Amino acid sequence: MTYDKNSKKALALHKKLKGKIIVTGKVKNLKASEIKLIYTPGVAAVCEEIYHHPEKKYDLTSKGNNVAIVTDGTRILGLGNIGPYAALPVMEGKAVLYQEFGQVSAFPICLATTKKEEIITAVKAIEPAFGAINLEDIESPKVLEVSDELTKSLSIPVFHDDRHGTSVVVLAGLLNSLKLVKKKSSTIRVVVAGAGSAGYGICKLLVAAGCENLLVTDSDGIIYKGRRQNMNKYKTDIANITNPNREKGLLSDALQNADVFIGVSGINNLITPQMIKEMNREPIIFALTNPDPEIKPELAKKAGARIVATGSYLYPNKVNNALVFPHLMRVILDRKIKKITMDLLLATSRAIAATVTDKKLHYDNIMPDMYDKKIQGNIVRAISKSR
Amino acid sequence: MTYDKNSKKALALHKKLKGKIIVTGKVKNLKASEIKLIYTPGVAAVCEEIYHHPEKKYDLTSKGNNVAIVTDGTRILGLGNIGPYAALPVMEGKAVLYQEFGQVSAFPICLATTKKEEIITAVKAIEPAFGAINLEDIESPKVLEVSDELTKSLSIPVFHDDRHGTSVVVLAGLLNSLKLVKKKSSTIRVVVAGAGSAGYGICKLLVAAGCENLLVTDSDGIIYKGRRQNMNKYKTDIANITNPNREKGLLSDALQNADVFIGVSGINNLITPQMIKEMNREPIIFALTNPDPEIKPELAKKAGARIVATGSYLYPNKVNNALVFPHLMRVILDRKIKKITMDLLLATSRAIAATVTDKKLHYDNIMPDMYDKKIQGNIVRAISKSR
Repeated sequence: MTYDKNSKKALALHKKLKGKIIVTGKVKNLKASEIKLIYTPGVAAVCEEIYHHPEKKYDLTSKGNNVAIVTDGTRILGLGNIGPYAALPVMEGKAVLYQEFGQVSAFPICLATTKKEEIITAVKAIEPAFGAINLEDIESPKVLEVSDELTKSLSIPVFHDDRHGTSVVVLAGLLNSLKLVKKKSSTIRVVVAGAGSAGYGICKLLVAAGCENLLVTDSDGIIYKGRRQNMNKYKTDIANITNPNREKGLLSDALQNADVFIGVSGINNLITPQMIKEMNREPIIFALTNPDPEIKPELAKKAGARIVATGSYLYPNKVNNALVFPHLMRVILDRKIKKITMDLLLATSRAIAATVTDKKLHYDNIMPDMYDKKIQGNIVRAISKSR
Repeated sequence: MTYDKNSKKALALHKKLKGKIIVTGKVKNLKASEIKLIYTPGVAAVCEEIYHHPEKKYDLTSKGNNVAIVTDGTRILGLGNIGPYAALPVMEGKAVLYQEFGQVSAFPICLATTKKEEIITAVKAIEPAFGAINLEDIESPKVLEVSDELTKSLSIPVFHDDRHGTSVVVLAGLLNSLKLVKKKSSTIRVVVAGAGSAGYGICKLLVAAGCENLLVTDSDGIIYKGRRQNMNKYKTDIANITNPNREKGLLSDALQNADVFIGVSGINNLITPQMIKEMNREPIIFALTNPDPEIKPELAKKAGARIVATGSYLYPNKVNNALVFPHLMRVILDRKIKKITMDLLLATSRAIAATVTDKKLHYDNIMPDMYDKKIQGNIVRAISKSR
């Protein structure tokens, strides 16, 4: 393999660290008198308390702050199905961000199986020690079924970052973009390229946010009610809630007179400057596929795009899940929220968007900075109000 | 519930802490430039390295330092089957000790199932992120089968603390006791009361250490070759390697002229002063059931016991697994040991015993102090020599 400069630095750092996470006690340099409390014999009373009053498990253990980052390694970053071992560095990185930005204890659960039923069985089995599940980088549509089934059967929330987290950050960016170009979500034409986890999640949230003219495309073109080829139950759901005029055709057809393009296709250079030229005034382009987007930002701008966002730190307007998952999970855990609802996601999107003040809002600054301390407080307040 | 003073302090501490463990990044106060290395995009190169060179997972991730503490909550301390939630405080306590004494990252995996096959399936599923499995407080003989099956099928070591850890610490204490009373393991008569995980583990290790005259008893008395009632494959194994004269009878029969009693029966006041009086000269009594031992130490001493050990901090000679598991696991992980063998356990026992210098060795001081910094180094050296 040949690696670029940042990759080489990343490899060197990982070699030095030998793993990025550690599990430690909250009490350190234990005295013998403390061992009698945190372990035998004192701990027996804590066990008995929970046995007799099960709800106390949240007060007396780490359960309420533990998140399992569950993957089967089938859809890691832009790398695809590289298996549970090669997935580990991403899951550990995510765990680091969970603690750093959300004070959440997240632990990687990389599964030695890729079978839907076995994934479900494994997650059900490990539920007791965790306060929430974060599904991560599992191939679609399998992961959507896993997520739905677990949401039904577990008593803890199932957060599917590729679906929920991405949708929240996309809507946040869109809300700020629409403010700048002075358009309304109810009247714009939005095209989402990609009908996997991210595409499905974005579609659901945009509809919940009032987007009435939404088209979703996959490798067979526009998804419409009655389409036969390359469908699954999530695409049928998409067909039922989007595309009111049953438009058919290619992505290029969908983009004609569109106001917004959202690319979560996994395909680089999917759209051309010509397609952007055929969009409505002041086109908004979210080319979110990593590492190489659906169109290079400089090309999109040249073709007339008013606002361009990507998933990469190389450009302005980074639409990044890390703005969402640590903070939202903090709130989910603290408020013992049991299900991820559209209301919850909408409130979170609005809170993230509102973190960029009018004074700072600009075509090249639609997203808040990851380090902005106000994000979490804004989400807390928004969710409190929405419930 | 009414709790004693130590229990009340334990409850108060747990309420204050709200869980005893946290998962944190090794790099803290992350800069944006570091996020590009530990997470996207830099992390992708690390994933690719592992994908192309799978053995690098030990150099580039936390796998090699992560231990899953797996329980189903069926045999927690002396409390019995209290379920996976009430088990959590013990598993967290153990995780704290793992980090504190062994610099090992251990995470509780409390299972929502008590079925043997489902436990095996769940542990197999979560293997990839862990460097070792620690089975804990699962009922016997189920756990012995789980442990054997997982040892066969996993590529990481399966440490069964109730079996392996207990046997190591018991043998260490026994070796030092024999030194004091000037007897040899090959000629003593040893009685082990209890044929569960601990009893089985102790039996196997004592035989490996050269004990030729060993009797194991359960609720049906002495286990012998050909016994029909209340047997399982582990008791059959015990029958085959102990009791060379096929003695039958009760525990009291077994104890006649015995040199050593080792109680891991789970039954308090199982033996009487009279039984001790009928033992050989300078009897050694390890009454290890918690919280209430097989005989109160003061009674045992009065009846003539030369050395008395318990599992409790209230008395001298605490025979405590915590002397073993953090240190042994550190060595297992560092040396990438794949199977727990008798040689490994023997070397560890001898190293722990030898940590008590001749000068300090005394009837009331057969075990090293938990805080003795020499324990780990001694184990490392002993294992290096034995391999």
